[in-house]
Amino acid sequence: MTNLIEYEDASEEVRTVYDDIRATRQTDYINNFWKALANHPPTLKRTWETLKEVMASPGEIDPLMRELIYIAVSVTNGCEYCIASHTAAARTKGMNEQMFGELMAITGAANMTNRLANGYQIPVDEQFKQ
Amino acid sequence: MTNLIEYEDASEEVRTVYDDIRATRQTDYINNFWKALANHPPTLKRTWETLKEVMASPGEIDPLMRELIYIAVSVTNGCEYCIASHTAAARTKGMNEQMFGELMAITGAANMTNRLANGYQIPVDEQFKQ
Amino acid sequence: MTNLIEYEDASEEVRTVYDDIRATRQTDYINNFWKALANHPPTLKRTWETLKEVMASPGEIDPLMRELIYIAVSVTNGCEYCIASHTAAARTKGMNEQMFGELMAITGAANMTNRLANGYQIPVDEQFKQ
Amino acid sequence: MTNLIEYEDASEEVRTVYDDIRATRQTDYINNFWKALANHPPTLKRTWETLKEVMASPGEIDPLMRELIYIAVSVTNGCEYCIASHTAAARTKGMNEQMFGELMAITGAANMTNRLANGYQIPVDEQFKQ
Amino acid sequence: MTNLIEYEDASEEVRTVYDDIRATRQTDYINNFWKALANHPPTLKRTWETLKEVMASPGEIDPLMRELIYIAVSVTNGCEYCIASHTAAARTKGMNEQMFGELMAITGAANMTNRLANGYQIPVDEQFKQ
Amino acid sequence: MTNLIEYEDASEEVRTVYDDIRATRQTDYINNFWKALANHPPTLKRTWETLKEVMASPGEIDPLMRELIYIAVSVTNGCEYCIASHTAAARTKGMNEQMFGELMAITGAANMTNRLANGYQIPVDEQFKQ
Repeated sequence: MTNLIEYEDASEEVRTVYDDIRATRQTDYINNFWKALANHPPTLKRTWETLKEVMASPGEIDPLMRELIYIAVSVTNGCEYCIASHTAAARTKGMNEQMFGELMAITGAANMTNRLANGYQIPVDEQFKQ
Repeated sequence: MTNLIEYEDASEEVRTVYDDIRATRQTDYINNFWKALANHPPTLKRTWETLKEVMASPGEIDPLMRELIYIAVSVTNGCEYCIASHTAAARTKGMNEQMFGELMAITGAANMTNRLANGYQIPVDEQFKQ
Repeated sequence: MTNLIEYEDASEEVRTVYDDIRATRQTDYINNFWKALANHPPTLKRTWETLKEVMASPGEIDPLMRELIYIAVSVTNGCEYCIASHTAAARTKGMNEQMFGELMAITGAANMTNRLANGYQIPVDEQFKQ
Repeated sequence: MTNLIEYEDASEEVRTVYDDIRATRQTDYINNFWKALANHPPTLKRTWETLKEVMASPGEIDPLMRELIYIAVSVTNGCEYCIASHTAAARTKGMNEQMFGELMAITGAANMTNRLANGYQIPVDEQFKQ
Repeated sequence: MTNLIEYEDASEEVRTVYDDIRATRQTDYINNFWKALANHPPTLKRTWETLKEVMASPGEIDPLMRELIYIAVSVTNGCEYCIASHTAAARTKGMNEQMFGELMAITGAANMTNRLANGYQIPVDEQFKQ
Repeated sequence: MTNLIEYEDASEEVRTVYDDIRATRQTDYINNFWKALANHPPTLKRTWETLKEVMASPGEIDPLMRELIYIAVSVTNGCEYCIASHTAAARTKGMNEQMFGELMAITGAANMTNRLANGYQIPVDEQFKQ
């Protein structure tokens, strides 16, 4: 079982990341993902900076839609932790049951058609290569 | 190599689906995916009806965002045909280079964190189980 | 590019496997898969013995159905070589277009429902645990 | 945690699907998969109709073999719910321990050879392209 | 639930494999993986011989590095049992927390860049084809 | 087709990354992966910094073994570009044919046993949970 590192037991390097997570998310709660990554501080720091930039920086895709994309990937990979944590995050950002249903329908259908395309060995249309 | 069935050579059952694809998309072009599925008409019909409902019926996620979710899944699965065809579809619906860049960044990051969560065997936080 | 090792250039160890492939399949043709694995003779030998036992030994699942199962896995994983070679093998053993269509339909549907089960985080029914 | 919708609490639309599941399977039991999908009635209806057509309509692959193919996909994807539910379904349709053993052997071997083909970057033989 | 076959209840064929596992690993403990595979003795025997050859025979990659490679694959596939058992095995062979952190960092990064390469549909450089 | 951005056409931001790639690798050659990511400069910069830290910073796993782990992941995911580019990189760092053979054998075997563990629904041994 992975050791989950609490703030009290954390090194200065880890605490700096925890502090930034708290400030960015405006909550005291640090979820288990970060407490586990804290076992390898460079991975904790790099992963947090990546997620912060990718999920929360200004851009053309709004924060809720970013969560939906993240969930679609996690569901495709079957990552239980990520599905649970990002479904919770998406609800906080406004995802309702109807939206989640649509997301699952798209994710399921894409996984189906991906295999139909594989199995039938379909050549890419010339016009999609441009 | 899969036989691609052209309209001229198609059965009545297949033509009905091709006609609906053309009417729904307002284009004469039928891409290879459907011409390949036409080798098994029930799969052609069911898959078209599924995609039409899932990708094009009214809902809370807009059509462009549906394409982005579809691409995220196809990229995760490495389906070359689906990546090419839906990237083209998304561009038609307004996806620009910046948006595609953000989409790839989220898809890549989710694939990374999915494995970090797997590898560290992180228990799901109680508050994500509600 | 992987070096494909021809019979003429093969070591005694590799030739013994090639001979067994030819005898078992009753054809002189050695396909590229084996010519590539021959770069590491222990892997060639072990993989051939595994496939021979798993795909061709007497059992309760008939040889054609074994090929269908193999294709379903290869399509799910998106392995182009394996899809092409085992679709050819299955046709030799009697797979017709209708059967292939059904196989793709099942494979596609399972890939879809796998993700719906993941995404909705569905608890396993007590009666399925027995 | 996904809300599982019981018959008593279901809308007319959902009840119609539940009734058809019961009639088709000749059992009163509705498993959790459907009770979860009932949160999004269009997905419940479409998924049930897909599975009914794909797994239970007349065809060239018999019902037990369809279950085996379904299991091979679910095992490849690591979908715990689907493995548990369809292994139970396959046993009901006649799968014995020996048959399950053969199925696992094929599924495992295909997953291995898929990666050997990927890693050695093996070109598809000309004769498999026809 | 899979029946786990204990030594006392095992056939002669299964006991021979269990004896070899014990002798090779120099421990009396047989873990659940083998007790489950014992339900299909040919799969038990073939899988043990494969793992023994692949993970423990003399070669150019040392035993600890083989475990790290095994874990990287299992984490990518999300196989809970395999992650738990081979992480334990790797620790026995000398993996420390720092090494595990580096392993997870590489595994996560590769999963990310694999998708960036897929999504951007990047053509393989000529010099990598040689 | 993704636009590959050459040094001559690159922005200052992109050129800074290209310069660092050249300096770190001590070669003028920029491979297509980076030229494609350059379409979204923040992803180019973040991905390069991640790979540089993960693959090239001092640590307990040596650079060649890091490449082997990276290849194992890419082979499992079936990423053609990544397999080709990192197999080339590993050869530069000393990987010979024998080592590559062992790597493929481990990667293939792990993909097989991952599915056997999934399919038999094997409970994790208590001693692996510590």
